[in-house]
Amino acid sequence: MPSPREAPKSLQRKMDEVVEAVNKTIAKLLPETDLPEDKLFEAMRYGTMNGGKRLRPFLVIQAASLFNVDSKRSRRVAAAIEFVHCYSLIHDDLPAMDNSDMRRGKPSTHRAFDEATATLAGDALLALAFQVLSDPATHEDPRVRIELVAKLAEASGAHGLCGGQMLDLLGEQEAFDVGTISRLQRMKTGKLMAFACEAGAILGKSDEPHRKALCNYAYDLGLAFQVTDDVLDVEADPEVTGKPANQDAAAGKSTFVKALGKEAAKMRAEMLAAQAKRHLKVFSGHAETLEELADYVLSRRA
Amino acid sequence: MPSPREAPKSLQRKMDEVVEAVNKTIAKLLPETDLPEDKLFEAMRYGTMNGGKRLRPFLVIQAASLFNVDSKRSRRVAAAIEFVHCYSLIHDDLPAMDNSDMRRGKPSTHRAFDEATATLAGDALLALAFQVLSDPATHEDPRVRIELVAKLAEASGAHGLCGGQMLDLLGEQEAFDVGTISRLQRMKTGKLMAFACEAGAILGKSDEPHRKALCNYAYDLGLAFQVTDDVLDVEADPEVTGKPANQDAAAGKSTFVKALGKEAAKMRAEMLAAQAKRHLKVFSGHAETLEELADYVLSRRA
Repeated sequence: MPSPREAPKSLQRKMDEVVEAVNKTIAKLLPETDLPEDKLFEAMRYGTMNGGKRLRPFLVIQAASLFNVDSKRSRRVAAAIEFVHCYSLIHDDLPAMDNSDMRRGKPSTHRAFDEATATLAGDALLALAFQVLSDPATHEDPRVRIELVAKLAEASGAHGLCGGQMLDLLGEQEAFDVGTISRLQRMKTGKLMAFACEAGAILGKSDEPHRKALCNYAYDLGLAFQVTDDVLDVEADPEVTGKPANQDAAAGKSTFVKALGKEAAKMRAEMLAAQAKRHLKVFSGHAETLEELADYVLSRRA
Repeated sequence: MPSPREAPKSLQRKMDEVVEAVNKTIAKLLPETDLPEDKLFEAMRYGTMNGGKRLRPFLVIQAASLFNVDSKRSRRVAAAIEFVHCYSLIHDDLPAMDNSDMRRGKPSTHRAFDEATATLAGDALLALAFQVLSDPATHEDPRVRIELVAKLAEASGAHGLCGGQMLDLLGEQEAFDVGTISRLQRMKTGKLMAFACEAGAILGKSDEPHRKALCNYAYDLGLAFQVTDDVLDVEADPEVTGKPANQDAAAGKSTFVKALGKEAAKMRAEMLAAQAKRHLKVFSGHAETLEELADYVLSRRA
């Protein structure tokens, strides 16, 4: 069995630190209860404490650190964004959607519980994300909090995540061209990643050029990430990725590999990662970790 | 066929006005598109333009009018709360939840479209509610907007709507006592109704006693509404209610009628409506419309 390509030591250490910190924050925000409806909270914990890479939290925390934001704040925002990401995975896995029984080598939430509980757990995680952002503990300035809420609502709604997933399902019936797949992925993955980076800038009350640069970085990174995902779907070892190979191809999904071919897809991912890094030039070398991340996203094996 | 009990003329006129105004606001917030994913927006429109009574919008607008709030603002908040209510109906109707094929005499959203689209339409409506509240058009003061967001998130999450629906499903396996059913309904119906009233007070920057009075009114009203709903489930004419009779009983749900018997349930609804009206005394007769509403909720036939 091939071992997954590791990130460079220092990047890997920083990523591990974020995983640990965000897991702690998530656990605090989803404490165990002895309520009669505790099954719902259990499913919310199950769907969020899932061994994920916490890429979006990493983006929030790294972007925020560029503006010296208190890590207590960025961790809360990171957890909120991860709640939205995890809710979308829980709903996407449902039988009526992508019908995935496994997620990162474990039964998906509706398999570990049931469909009704998984649906509600997803719903409740989306609501919780907004609750966390609107809490004064996230930032004492209500203008900062309401801007975070507005941007998250936009990224997770019909013009973001939900619209992207709708397109993804429609793409099973119709072969999309690269332009439509790019738009789909920009909505489904890009907007939330861009918000993760932008949230760091909002917390840090950044000026417009630095904020814009982070958004553009995240859009290109997100697309590079997705193209690589499509390549991994046809290429990777299920024992490393934790999901069956050729899952998207079998579902007849419109993917970059399908539209471009594998080699052209790999080249596009490289181009996107290079472009992502170029946006960071305004930080005059201080955004080194985010630059390293762009290389890692390209070379990952799981 | 018995005709549904009408509200008193003046109340009915006010309710019709709210239905019309809120439908217009909803239509503006959900315009037709020519996007490839327009199916999602169509399902969102279908699930919200459903001939509903707009009880929650009515509460927002009446409560707000007690503080002379600009109706442009209260209508936006009313639409946001109705989005959350409609999202919860769309998800509750899903096969894995209450498995309802019909809603107000029409196919439910997953029957008119499909399960995946209905799930996404619900998700997107929840996100849209937060987007509407966080928009400066709702109120120019970010402190007002963030308070609306925080309260809506709380009402719609695991300690509100979602937790209530979880309990509702658990109540199909276990006969709940009246205390647990009351808690379930307070979460599932009461919190969003209380928020509807409180939102009017928040928009109007009300003092604490008036705000609290409105919340308490709404909790009692919501419970009176729900008890009456349980009575209607066993008593009403499907041609008037637009859903099959004995639906909850057939699903084995824990209802007030099951726990108390029909006559005791009717008495409890009367007591709750009277209690609801008493909370309004702090408004020295100015909250007449909300008082009339409490009587109407009790006497409705659909």
